Amino acid sequence: MSEHRDKMASNADERLARGKKLREQMMGPGVAPGTPATQELAPFFSQWIYESVFGDLYGRPQLDLKTRVFITMVALSVQGRMSQMRGYVGASLRLGWTREEIVEAIVQLAPYQGVPATHDALAAAREVFESHKP
Amino acid sequence: MSEHRDKMASNADERLARGKKLREQMMGPGVAPGTPATQELAPFFSQWIYESVFGDLYGRPQLDLKTRVFITMVALSVQGRMSQMRGYVGASLRLGWTREEIVEAIVQLAPYQGVPATHDALAAAREVFESHKP
Amino acid sequence: MSEHRDKMASNADERLARGKKLREQMMGPGVAPGTPATQELAPFFSQWIYESVFGDLYGRPQLDLKTRVFITMVALSVQGRMSQMRGYVGASLRLGWTREEIVEAIVQLAPYQGVPATHDALAAAREVFESHKP
Amino acid sequence: MSEHRDKMASNADERLARGKKLREQMMGPGVAPGTPATQELAPFFSQWIYESVFGDLYGRPQLDLKTRVFITMVALSVQGRMSQMRGYVGASLRLGWTREEIVEAIVQLAPYQGVPATHDALAAAREVFESHKP
Amino acid sequence: MSEHRDKMASNADERLARGKKLREQMMGPGVAPGTPATQELAPFFSQWIYESVFGDLYGRPQLDLKTRVFITMVALSVQGRMSQMRGYVGASLRLGWTREEIVEAIVQLAPYQGVPATHDALAAAREVFESHKP
Amino acid sequence: MSEHRDKMASNADERLARGKKLREQMMGPGVAPGTPATQELAPFFSQWIYESVFGDLYGRPQLDLKTRVFITMVALSVQGRMSQMRGYVGASLRLGWTREEIVEAIVQLAPYQGVPATHDALAAAREVFESHKP
Repeated sequence: MSEHRDKMASNADERLARGKKLREQMMGPGVAPGTPATQELAPFFSQWIYESVFGDLYGRPQLDLKTRVFITMVALSVQGRMSQMRGYVGASLRLGWTREEIVEAIVQLAPYQGVPATHDALAAAREVFESHKP
Repeated sequence: MSEHRDKMASNADERLARGKKLREQMMGPGVAPGTPATQELAPFFSQWIYESVFGDLYGRPQLDLKTRVFITMVALSVQGRMSQMRGYVGASLRLGWTREEIVEAIVQLAPYQGVPATHDALAAAREVFESHKP
Repeated sequence: MSEHRDKMASNADERLARGKKLREQMMGPGVAPGTPATQELAPFFSQWIYESVFGDLYGRPQLDLKTRVFITMVALSVQGRMSQMRGYVGASLRLGWTREEIVEAIVQLAPYQGVPATHDALAAAREVFESHKP
Repeated sequence: MSEHRDKMASNADERLARGKKLREQMMGPGVAPGTPATQELAPFFSQWIYESVFGDLYGRPQLDLKTRVFITMVALSVQGRMSQMRGYVGASLRLGWTREEIVEAIVQLAPYQGVPATHDALAAAREVFESHKP
Repeated sequence: MSEHRDKMASNADERLARGKKLREQMMGPGVAPGTPATQELAPFFSQWIYESVFGDLYGRPQLDLKTRVFITMVALSVQGRMSQMRGYVGASLRLGWTREEIVEAIVQLAPYQGVPATHDALAAAREVFESHKP
Repeated sequence: MSEHRDKMASNADERLARGKKLREQMMGPGVAPGTPATQELAPFFSQWIYESVFGDLYGRPQLDLKTRVFITMVALSVQGRMSQMRGYVGASLRLGWTREEIVEAIVQLAPYQGVPATHDALAAAREVFESHKP
């Protein structure tokens, strides 16, 4: 176990701090996981996401954050989870993916997720692009 | 066949009456299955749901109504059918599940349905909780 | 209600008999709904399918059986339910769809269900075609 | 390959022209694939749909357009892609399916896609029926 | 934060120990999360499941373990994840649900997940019932 | 239109040749799209994939092939299309992704696609890793 242990902080405060920092890099400051409903009804779950998802998984060195964010955007597109996908389109922009690359990835998925899913994901991406206008 | 027969009413009026009564326990009075579109376009289907879903299945003694309603809420969360899920959050409250239990069940599902699905389901639950405020 | 009532048999024996007859047209003689597990664990559910699915829905005159069987095959392809899809490929053949039409329908779905789903459905169709060889 | 080649136009302009014509039969004049986001962000993808989906696949003689449109409507219902489904409900009306047949098909799917999916699809169909009122 | 903190062990060893104990109650002794592939390729992920899924979530007092296991079985049925579903059918038996209740729950889901999904889940349940024969 | 035209070969033979070449880079020599069923029942569809999927989409310069292959692997994991996913695990290896990166990507997806989907995808990846042993 000890060999895996060093890959995860054994201390909750450390995991939380690391998770919050990573999430801030992705989503910008002050964006807690989930919607207001999550914060209100299940604050422990919001904290669990910081610790167990962002703190434990996102920071592992085997894959860089830029790639993690991009493939998560892909997963959300395939699942049709549009509100969360918008968050990951923003995160992809923040981590250096261009609009052209994001659009191209969504089109690449069309033969797999279906053309309608690609239309829906392009519509979601465009909303994010507009709110990120320089 | 006769051994199964006695578990289902053989008479349509009886099935309809039982289904309507069970549904009223779950959803409150006067809430027919489906949306106005179902009532308008496919009234026979609305009746079929009363007879074949509520009349035939929901009343079987092998599982109590409280459990049936809760696992149906879970199924709708996993499928991402939020408008119907809201109905079953309300039914769960009506049959004695607490808000805390409903929230906890939705969080329990996160490692299976995914974190985004849990966020969406919590948002749906919160809408119901607010409209059920005492 | 009475206007819809006449569209459904009010008597369980009548519904069961009609459902069995329709299913036999589709699947050939002696093929009860589900797998041996359904027959063994939930015989009442097998009967419910005869009565409520085949007896109540499949025989309605608003859509002919040939079309019902074909669109059900499509639905099962999209859902990736291959063992049941095979049954409906067989039913489609039995009701007069050609192999060429079935293949073409599965390919038509590719831009919607995705190319991989079409490959899987073609493989399922081919198994049925081989077992139906004249 | 040459035997299959003649089934597809080898020339892009021809494929595009054929695809546009077929799509116009289905959707009425001037309705490009996708939403404004598709047109704006990925015009090459909109063109690809005209050529590769409508030009290459929809016009093949093995299955008539009326059937293709209907089974695509079914696929979109099963996937829960309601905005695109509405387009194919309209296309089904345009190609000669009656409202009664469309409603019946959506109800036929209930035991496969689930009752909630059928409620959602009926609501989508009703919106289209209302905007197509004579 | 401190109010939520006490609901989760802040110490990794404690979380791991608690998770392993809970999982053993559910699955019997010596069944690590995942398949041999998970153990071989991603041992840190297997440990993460013990700590973050079983250690953090399953032991929370807001919902008893018996209910958690049952609704997880439901979620896996709806998703069509049959190999994991089998594990949760076994866990449901171990925690006191009867075969009759498990069968009834799977049938209850039929109008939501679809009849074919219920057939597949009954077949999975039956395999488990046979291997648990007294 | 002309501005988009230059991004796609207007000539079918050119598109086919380019598609075959790209696919060979990904899958190794002699692996036609789909299974033997696709080749036998729908050779025109296999050709369509070469032309319209690989020829038109995969070669676009906006995203490199290495990234396209990786995100397609992710999409197939989320969809649970394991036989095709295996092909894209192999393609990812061929295009320079390491085993460690592939495993890490599949684990990254766990909070989105669910833990069971990650177990299934790891099992699929391991099969490919074993057949690619040096």
